[in-house]
This record gives sequence, C-alpha cells and structure tokens, in this order.
Amino acid sequence: MSKVSFYYFEFRGLGEGMRRLLAYGGQEFEDIRIIFQNFSEFKSETPFGQLPMLVIDGKKYAQSSAIARYLGRKYGLAGKDIEEDFEIDQVMELFTEFRLAAAAPVYEKDESLRPKKFAELSETKYPFYVQKFVEILTKNNGFLALGRLTWADFVFVGYFDCLKMLLRMPDLEEKYPIFKKLVEAVENIPKVKAFIDSAPKSEV
Amino acid sequence: MSKVSFYYFEFRGLGEGMRRLLAYGGQEFEDIRIIFQNFSEFKSETPFGQLPMLVIDGKKYAQSSAIARYLGRKYGLAGKDIEEDFEIDQVMELFTEFRLAAAAPVYEKDESLRPKKFAELSETKYPFYVQKFVEILTKNNGFLALGRLTWADFVFVGYFDCLKMLLRMPDLEEKYPIFKKLVEAVENIPKVKAFIDSAPKSEV
Repeated sequence: MSKVSFYYFEFRGLGEGMRRLLAYGGQEFEDIRIIFQNFSEFKSETPFGQLPMLVIDGKKYAQSSAIARYLGRKYGLAGKDIEEDFEIDQVMELFTEFRLAAAAPVYEKDESLRPKKFAELSETKYPFYVQKFVEILTKNNGFLALGRLTWADFVFVGYFDCLKMLLRMPDLEEKYPIFKKLVEAVENIPKVKAFIDSAPKSEV
Repeated sequence: MSKVSFYYFEFRGLGEGMRRLLAYGGQEFEDIRIIFQNFSEFKSETPFGQLPMLVIDGKKYAQSSAIARYLGRKYGLAGKDIEEDFEIDQVMELFTEFRLAAAAPVYEKDESLRPKKFAELSETKYPFYVQKFVEILTKNNGFLALGRLTWADFVFVGYFDCLKMLLRMPDLEEKYPIFKKLVEAVENIPKVKAFIDSAPKSEV
C-alpha cells in the first residue's frame, strides 16, 4: 500500500478538489494543512515553492491541474480517448484563466491599486467567464465536460466558494442554479460526502 | 483525410509550438495567420474569444496547452502512462506560470504602471523561473521532461523568442547554452525544419 500525503493550506481553495479526488478514489491519505503564515518555512520542501503538493511514496507531485488530471485518470474520471480528454483539458484551462483573473486584484502587490483592478476586471472579464461557464454547464448536462462527471468538476466545485468570495458574488448559485446543481452533484457522492463531513471546516 | 486549419496571429508566440507539432505529425494544415489588429472581427468565431484555435473537420479546439497536449498524444510525443504524462503536464503548467508572469507587464492596462510591474517581477519572479528551467533541462538530458523529446518542448521552443523579448533577456541562451541546445533539438527535426524554412518569417 502506497503512503500518500496531500499538502495544502488550511482552507479548501485550490486543494479541495484534489482532496476529494483522493477520497473518491478510496485512497487513504494524510491531509496535511499548512498554516498560510507558516508556509515560508515549508516552501523549500516543495518542487516549485508552491502548494498544493501530493506525495506518493516520497515522490512529489506539484502543479494543481497536473495533479488533478493525474488523479482523475487514475480514478476513472477522465475521457475514454484523447478527444474526450481534450474536452476536459480545454474547460479546465478556461477555469484556470477565470481563477487567475478572479485572484488578480488580491495578488496586486500595491494595495492602493486593488480596487481599480477589481473594478476593471468586474467590467471586462468576470461577466464573460460567468456566462461562459453557465453556457458550458447547460450544454453538458450540468457538468463541465462530456455531459458527465469528470475530474474538472472536482476542481471547480472545490474552488467554488473561493471564487464567489474573490468575485464578490455571494449569490452566484442563487442567480445561476446550474452552479448549485454542479456543487451538489459532486458533494453528494457518498465517498466525497463522507470526506467533507469528517474534514476540518473552513470558510472557503 | 481530415481538413485541418490552425489559426493564430502573424507571429510565432504561443501558436508556433502547435504549428510545429502538426508539421511533426505529417499533418497538412491551413496555416492561417490573423493580423493582430483585425482580431476583433474574428473573435466571435473562436470558442472563448482567443487564439490559438485548431479546427479539424469543422470542430473547434481552443486553449493552447489543451491543444498541444492533444496533438502531442496524437503524434507519439506524450508519456507512456499517466505517471509520465504527469511529468510533462507539471512542467508545462510551470511554463504557463512563467509565460504569464513574463507577459504581465505588457498586459497591464495602465501603461504608466508597466515599468514598475516589470521591475518588480524581474526581481521577484523571473530569475526563479529561469533558474528552475535550467535545473529541469539539466536533469532531463536537455529536454523538459522524461529525459526525451515531448510536446512540452515544442511549446517552450515555439515561444522562446517571445519569452526573451518579454523578459528583455536577448542573450538568455548565450548565458545558458542548455536553452540553445533545446531550441536546436526541436528545430533540427527534419519535418520541423522543413516547416520553419517554408513558413512566413516574423521577429518573435
């Protein structure tokens, strides 16, 4: 039996999708949650100075989409061929763009520029992405790709509360119930539900 | 025989890796180069308002890493299993981060902030990425992953002159000859060389 550890911060964010993929796959793992403020001490232990990091029998896996794709393929949540995998990858890459745009104001070093950056992206980018994802979900039977559950759904749903916070759209899934449907589709999977119920709670 | 068209701007940039992957695969394709200033007229023809776009028998493929991965798997430039594919994906995702950081000053809407942003990233990010990629290439026999040629090398090499321009490091491969070795390894592949020789020329 492999020894598996998953390292992320003490919130759901970008790591939660992977935690839930591991739970879905029935993989026992150490769920290690690093206090954000203490990360600098741990940084040099990671391949590229970042979390999430998955460690399987001492081998370190970095980069969130790469890890999620790997777990998705491992646990039968990928496409049946390269055409199908492409569909998942395409929407996941769009999600990464969305996520980075959503986080851009927070990552702006000069705090005085953050409100302007947020206002600009709220006008030029966020409505486009929200609309695109509503379209994609509508076309795919409530999922992000292939009309069925894939690893991309785990990443999206794991990050969803973070996304709402960054976009300052607390009622996003009330406005677009198709997001709520996707969240429930993932979170009601029995192994995922059991993981969520037993995991430490955090706001996002 | 499939009808294949590849749409990108009239420079190498992020599209060149995919053009060369198609050439490597022996795939005949329409190499359509959109004048950057005219893109707004064409934008609505693309899935997400962006290029590159690959069209195979009318089906549209968007998102650069997703397209490159798809072509790489199609033409035998991927891993032999999900562990190997992970290695390629991980480094490709790091490259995407590097590329976005390199382009961030240019994408800054407020032109007056660009010099500051460039100075900041030149201090905090660019040296880290350069060093990391030198390390990765050194560990992998001059390639980005698996110690051999993969689709990730095509993407990196296609973008390399753009990267140097954005980083303002015209002598990057003189300083680190391992980059030059990688560029040559890709560009000297006979089918790639034939494509480069016959393709329109552009500065980056």
